[in-house]
Amino acid sequence: MKARVHIMLKTGVLDPQGEAVRHALGSLGFDGVEAVRQGKVIELDLADGTKEAAINDMCERLLANTVIESYRVEIL
Amino acid sequence: MKARVHIMLKTGVLDPQGEAVRHALGSLGFDGVEAVRQGKVIELDLADGTKEAAINDMCERLLANTVIESYRVEIL
Repeated sequence: MKARVHIMLKTGVLDPQGEAVRHALGSLGFDGVEAVRQGKVIELDLADGTKEAAINDMCERLLANTVIESYRVEIL
Repeated sequence: MKARVHIMLKTGVLDPQGEAVRHALGSLGFDGVEAVRQGKVIELDLADGTKEAAINDMCERLLANTVIESYRVEIL
């Protein structure tokens, strides 16, 4: 089975990487880019029958820094 | 309007970051993690009426390295 984990900085947490992208897009002449947030996607190839609870556990313990990041698990 | 761009390394391109995550999950006792690929998500807040072609152009020129990465645009 496959799962995809989306990890984004929580709202209100400063995102300097996204801000750099926004600025660079402006410099390239793309108008109307109001805000940019950058996050991570992690695609996992898991043994069949892995429970969603185990994936959440992976996120809590390793994949996401839950102090500043939120995550969303999608089973494919 | 909002758009989300998913950027992943192309199949066959070595992903050391994903490999490190796979190894770390194994060390934490998570069995059955067969493969891990890590990518980026970029959420864009754009002026209304921005065309999908403009977003593809942003990907080609800045957001993705199309030699080794593929991207997918999702309009929200």
